[in-house]
Amino acid sequence: MRVNAYAAPSAGEPLAPITIERREVGANDVLIAIEYAGICHSDIHTVNGDWGPQPFPVVPGHEIVGRVTEVGSSVTDHEVGDRVGVGCFVNSCRECDNCRNGDEQHCSTPGGGVSTYAAKDRDGSFTQGGYSTHVVVDAHFALSVPDGLDPAAAAPLLCAGITTYAPLKRWGAGPGKKVAVVGLGGLGHMGVKLAHAMGAEVTVLSQSLKKQEDGLRLGADHYYATSDPATFKTLRNSFDLIVNTVSASIPVDDYLGLLAVGGTMVNVGAPSEPLSVNVFSLLAGRRNFAGSMIGGIPETQEMLDFCAEHNIGAEVEVISADQINEAYARVLASDVRYRFVIDTATIG
Amino acid sequence: MRVNAYAAPSAGEPLAPITIERREVGANDVLIAIEYAGICHSDIHTVNGDWGPQPFPVVPGHEIVGRVTEVGSSVTDHEVGDRVGVGCFVNSCRECDNCRNGDEQHCSTPGGGVSTYAAKDRDGSFTQGGYSTHVVVDAHFALSVPDGLDPAAAAPLLCAGITTYAPLKRWGAGPGKKVAVVGLGGLGHMGVKLAHAMGAEVTVLSQSLKKQEDGLRLGADHYYATSDPATFKTLRNSFDLIVNTVSASIPVDDYLGLLAVGGTMVNVGAPSEPLSVNVFSLLAGRRNFAGSMIGGIPETQEMLDFCAEHNIGAEVEVISADQINEAYARVLASDVRYRFVIDTATIG
Repeated sequence: MRVNAYAAPSAGEPLAPITIERREVGANDVLIAIEYAGICHSDIHTVNGDWGPQPFPVVPGHEIVGRVTEVGSSVTDHEVGDRVGVGCFVNSCRECDNCRNGDEQHCSTPGGGVSTYAAKDRDGSFTQGGYSTHVVVDAHFALSVPDGLDPAAAAPLLCAGITTYAPLKRWGAGPGKKVAVVGLGGLGHMGVKLAHAMGAEVTVLSQSLKKQEDGLRLGADHYYATSDPATFKTLRNSFDLIVNTVSASIPVDDYLGLLAVGGTMVNVGAPSEPLSVNVFSLLAGRRNFAGSMIGGIPETQEMLDFCAEHNIGAEVEVISADQINEAYARVLASDVRYRFVIDTATIG
Repeated sequence: MRVNAYAAPSAGEPLAPITIERREVGANDVLIAIEYAGICHSDIHTVNGDWGPQPFPVVPGHEIVGRVTEVGSSVTDHEVGDRVGVGCFVNSCRECDNCRNGDEQHCSTPGGGVSTYAAKDRDGSFTQGGYSTHVVVDAHFALSVPDGLDPAAAAPLLCAGITTYAPLKRWGAGPGKKVAVVGLGGLGHMGVKLAHAMGAEVTVLSQSLKKQEDGLRLGADHYYATSDPATFKTLRNSFDLIVNTVSASIPVDDYLGLLAVGGTMVNVGAPSEPLSVNVFSLLAGRRNFAGSMIGGIPETQEMLDFCAEHNIGAEVEVISADQINEAYARVLASDVRYRFVIDTATIG
């Protein structure tokens, strides 16, 4: 079927309306009428060509929420009318150890894992993302969005939510734990909400105190400026977990010094340049420097259920499709609190 | 009391006989007649001044095994005649969170943690180590050496043993787990023995295949040369845990690439220069780069009991005190399989 979408025609060119082909609904597929699609920084990197050549035209968007309007003959876990979400990937081999462990995002079969857009799918076609009115995906990769969640605020959970939920959960954020979130942007503000809901004592480490009021309102107990060298003295040896949402290079040793014995700093973004790490920073307190990348299907569903239970959504600014290019410029200027979400009813 | 010892008179000077003062046995102390003292690479770094100025003359030695010959009036956990060991530290505040958690090696009270030699003790005196006939320590810091252990082979357990046991235990070496040990020296050979006894599938990653026969005899299932680039392709994404015992700089990203999803590389030594880490190496498989430094008292006791149960000791070459300087030269030339241990009956 032909559907309306917004695509980048080539690297760096403004996004514009387009029609694209969505595949027929196969036996294991669901057709989703998209309601909302979040704008993730990755979308911008991809269409700008920062991450290499892309199969243009590219329809970005991997924070998708909508309603199921058709199901394939073998689909049992979703019904027409269900609200569902689609995150960063839409296929995987489902047979390798990682897939079987629910780590589909780390599918180890060459060509097995398929990103939601700008990726070669297992049938040879290229995926197109959520800045569109409809999408067809294998039902396994459609998450159930619980009724209690506002659909616009739920869209960013599919990337920003799971990206921060996964490390918080894995490294034990909870009552009695001191958790720092570095950066209060799209990812960071979700990290604060989630860590707070898990019962941890939450500290925001932001470049300045500009967003302090927001941070405290979102659930942080403390707020410090990393531009102030005193911060690194005051908070030395104090955190069980630091979730670093900032992709810019940071002085890793300074941050590792903020960890208590056995503490972990998890990066969820990656600077383009390698970082310098003094191994003594790790030895001195049995510290860990780790990475985490989105999450698998079971964990993403768990996160959505957790968010529904705790009434958590992203802080969003809903825009119409003709505002996408302006929104991109504002994301690059860090001028968004905290996520743009496209009302896809305006695409067409 | 005056006791005989071997000390470095100044930085880089050969070790020579000396007499030193040991404190009176206090209410909480034990006096130990030392039988064996292992030679650790740290001893050499310290007396050579590689780690800064030292309070010379320095008596090194923090791999100590001996018999209790006197106990203070308040000591209940050791008796005269017991075989005991002393490791890398002989005092700590015992009140901070880390001490209370059994992580005395990370005592967070300034001046609280006291190394076994060349350190200012809490009474203001400087500690002197195990290249000596006797030592007096607080009974809390004396470990019970089970009867089944050969005392000479047990001495290196107090540093090399706990240094490798702690990360293997913490990061889950055991049946069904693939563990790599980088380097087959004093630390590495203990890592292989311990990981094998824990039930893990053990691979040695050594610069060459020179010690392959030894490695397999000690318990390794596989042996690869890191000088062969094919090693890093063959073993990609395969280990749950890598314990890196090499202090030289390594290409961290190449080693992180050997880890399966969720795997951890733990450094137990530290190169003097910072290492370069590409954060994508961590993100790509939810990988973890960690450090571990010896172990606390409860864990060191657990390790000794584990070694007795599994009949594990270090591979040692027992020397007399007058061979210490020659042994140092051989350690620096990597010409020891795998640990020199001084028979302290020869000191005097």
